[in-house]
Amino acid sequence: MSDAAYQRLKARFARIAVLGEAQAMLHWDAAAVMPPGGAAARGEQLATLAGLSHELMTEPGMAADLAEADAAGEWDGANLELMRHAQARATALPTGLVEASARANAACETVWREARAQADFTRIAPFLAEVVKLQRETAAALSAAMGLSPYDSLMEGYQRGIGSADVEPIFAAYEAFLRDALPRAEERQARQPAPLEPNGPFAAVTQQALCREMAQRAGLDFAHARLDESLHPFCGGTPTDVRITTRYDTDAFAQALLGVLHETGHALYERGLPAEHARQPVGEAAGMAAHESQSLIIEMQASRSDAFLSFLGPKLHAAFGGDAAPYAPENLGRLWRRVRRGFIRVDADELTYPAHVILRFRLERALIGGELAVADLPEAWNEGFAALLGITPPDDAKGCLQDIHWHDGAFGYFPSYTLGAMAAAQLMRAARGAVPGLDHALAKGDMSPLTGWLRLHVHGQGSRLGFQDLLREATGKPLDPVDFTLHLTERYL
Amino acid sequence: MSDAAYQRLKARFARIAVLGEAQAMLHWDAAAVMPPGGAAARGEQLATLAGLSHELMTEPGMAADLAEADAAGEWDGANLELMRHAQARATALPTGLVEASARANAACETVWREARAQADFTRIAPFLAEVVKLQRETAAALSAAMGLSPYDSLMEGYQRGIGSADVEPIFAAYEAFLRDALPRAEERQARQPAPLEPNGPFAAVTQQALCREMAQRAGLDFAHARLDESLHPFCGGTPTDVRITTRYDTDAFAQALLGVLHETGHALYERGLPAEHARQPVGEAAGMAAHESQSLIIEMQASRSDAFLSFLGPKLHAAFGGDAAPYAPENLGRLWRRVRRGFIRVDADELTYPAHVILRFRLERALIGGELAVADLPEAWNEGFAALLGITPPDDAKGCLQDIHWHDGAFGYFPSYTLGAMAAAQLMRAARGAVPGLDHALAKGDMSPLTGWLRLHVHGQGSRLGFQDLLREATGKPLDPVDFTLHLTERYL
Repeated sequence: MSDAAYQRLKARFARIAVLGEAQAMLHWDAAAVMPPGGAAARGEQLATLAGLSHELMTEPGMAADLAEADAAGEWDGANLELMRHAQARATALPTGLVEASARANAACETVWREARAQADFTRIAPFLAEVVKLQRETAAALSAAMGLSPYDSLMEGYQRGIGSADVEPIFAAYEAFLRDALPRAEERQARQPAPLEPNGPFAAVTQQALCREMAQRAGLDFAHARLDESLHPFCGGTPTDVRITTRYDTDAFAQALLGVLHETGHALYERGLPAEHARQPVGEAAGMAAHESQSLIIEMQASRSDAFLSFLGPKLHAAFGGDAAPYAPENLGRLWRRVRRGFIRVDADELTYPAHVILRFRLERALIGGELAVADLPEAWNEGFAALLGITPPDDAKGCLQDIHWHDGAFGYFPSYTLGAMAAAQLMRAARGAVPGLDHALAKGDMSPLTGWLRLHVHGQGSRLGFQDLLREATGKPLDPVDFTLHLTERYL
Repeated sequence: MSDAAYQRLKARFARIAVLGEAQAMLHWDAAAVMPPGGAAARGEQLATLAGLSHELMTEPGMAADLAEADAAGEWDGANLELMRHAQARATALPTGLVEASARANAACETVWREARAQADFTRIAPFLAEVVKLQRETAAALSAAMGLSPYDSLMEGYQRGIGSADVEPIFAAYEAFLRDALPRAEERQARQPAPLEPNGPFAAVTQQALCREMAQRAGLDFAHARLDESLHPFCGGTPTDVRITTRYDTDAFAQALLGVLHETGHALYERGLPAEHARQPVGEAAGMAAHESQSLIIEMQASRSDAFLSFLGPKLHAAFGGDAAPYAPENLGRLWRRVRRGFIRVDADELTYPAHVILRFRLERALIGGELAVADLPEAWNEGFAALLGITPPDDAKGCLQDIHWHDGAFGYFPSYTLGAMAAAQLMRAARGAVPGLDHALAKGDMSPLTGWLRLHVHGQGSRLGFQDLLREATGKPLDPVDFTLHLTERYL
């Protein structure tokens, strides 16, 4: 056993992490600023970097160092274990498959942008079929190496330690909860006054300034971050240079504002990762469900709380002017916590959002398992959607074309959204218990008591702990969906 | 001899070129949009990519394929020769030196931005000393391998086939020409009416729209290009995704407008490179002097011609309004072809610009040769400047801190500017002879007869020919500085 081997491994992983940073920046550029004519070359660039990372991960010296290495202490021990895990996943995949996937994903994502705009599934179908074919090959190779089902082996790439067997009962229980809760929430809502819509137009430049101010207020430092526009809002970049995006609709400001607060939650996680473990596996975020818990705790738990809305309402009225009534905190609450059966996941309310995820989870598992063909996706989508929410999408842009994920090769990611929502409720309950005056501060627009607690218990922990252990140390128990249904019951029923 | 080996080489060089594209994009990002906090990580990213490219260029299989390869035909033959040359340069340099240089350059460039703003040479001196030290090591290693002097071996990296021995007599002759021509041009100018300055302010957004329109008019297609802002204007990106930048001064629009036309000339070269040889050495631009000839033929030869000014004047007046007199073509000519002894290279007129380059050529050769220490640079700069142009910079921001080049590790580049200016005059004379109605078209704002000729004789030639042969095929003779002094004599004397 050798510490020298471990030190060599740290240098190897740092180099791979730096290539990952370059890829993250090129992804951001493609989504936020790249002219359309650059797409083909960008696909090659991303594929080549992915291939090189994969070569570095699978070269013989890496395996030799891993066999020899020894690491003392909790952080280094966890780091070495994560290194072994990452290398095992990587060596399961041939370089050719990794590069082919990256290339197919980039090509599909580019065409998807047009296909979605035209609601034309036939346009994207051959590209998506190629992506799915390569994801099936990837899943099969990982499955054999990791001893997981093909779909679970993809899920593991986004949130280690969580598989279908964990998710299925949680989703089944939620489906049952929703069947009862949704009509009740709708009835209760029907008895309340109809929320007033603020009167637009809302100039994009005003929205942008407001979004920047709110992101800063939530703790984002623009010396290490940017806010830009893209078709599909996201948080990208690197821990010292986080890039969040949104899109501005001059008829409605809420989507951009709350979207920016959501991405700010992601960005704060990246910014708060332990700098002393930067570019090491243990210094990364603890997975996508953990990541989503951080965006949702800011967007859903904190920003839509009564306390924060009492601060935000007057700020919005000052920014946009016009009639004050729509900006009254109670009205904003009714407006932004309105339950509505809709087709678009990113526009969904907290209560129906998990139904969007459950549908995607079932469909993507069937796509990877080979039980569903890409050609049959639109029909399966529309049937599944009707079964869950009782309405049928009028076209594929409002159906299976709406999300970037599958068109960018991300299968197994969707469950993270709902696991994250549940973890956010659990963490918020724990933070409220641990931090006196948390809501009092929110009522002054001050998120720092909350984000300070998160930095300590989540951000600063990196990947030292798995998802369940992270929650256990922070809240005293592993993931417990009851905190989420309690939160929903309080807020909507 | 083997064609299979040549095909493998093409794949190897394509991979290296793709890494170069990633680096180009990250460079653009750092200069145009990166938040300051991202600088340290960006330095690592660029250093790692440079190191990986270098490893790919120097791996044993590359040498084996080069020894074995055979290529038939003019283009492939030239390509193989350029591959051998590139590999010989690369193998001369250890990977550690390449990565250390990239890291030192990135660190120095970042600090330079602040040091220049504060006119504080002491701030940058230790960083620049490190850059120079590594450039000296680089030059020594290249010198031994390529059989050139240390400085010439750096020059060769920017413009193959041109060395100090070519440049020295040209520069000495120009210095003599200028000693006579500058006072005469100043006297002649003093006898003319003083040019009227257009009255500002000139809104940045209006300037930007005008710059975009003029770049498009010159032939730039924004489906494959972007125009952004940066401290130091440049043309970066890749042939299918060119990124040009400028900076807007609301008190004066000419610098941005003519700067954009300059960068558009570079961009058209990249866009016009032979797509069938993309990512191969022979498909690249023929060097930096060749590149500069293309920016200057658009900016200096075409855009400041009487013909084009007669088109541009009314356009400018329509855009900015106010008094029409400053926009009269004759006035614009007097304004934009005004000879003035100034401190800043990028603001210099055509006549005095070479003096700025001559100074830098002599100083950088002395820095690389070890005859000049970084600490003594400000004094040597100021003395040399006074000897050439008779004035002394009031501070280092107007002296040795003004340019990015040395602070980014670019030594041996500066001569390209003046070689390019001379080649631009020579190419313009040849184009006027070959293309009937070229000036007639310019008077209508139509650059396509000129750019069409350039695409055929310069852009589309890639690196099939060296700088001298490129000029010989296009104009019937190698570089002939007489065409430049003739042009200056016509325009200024």
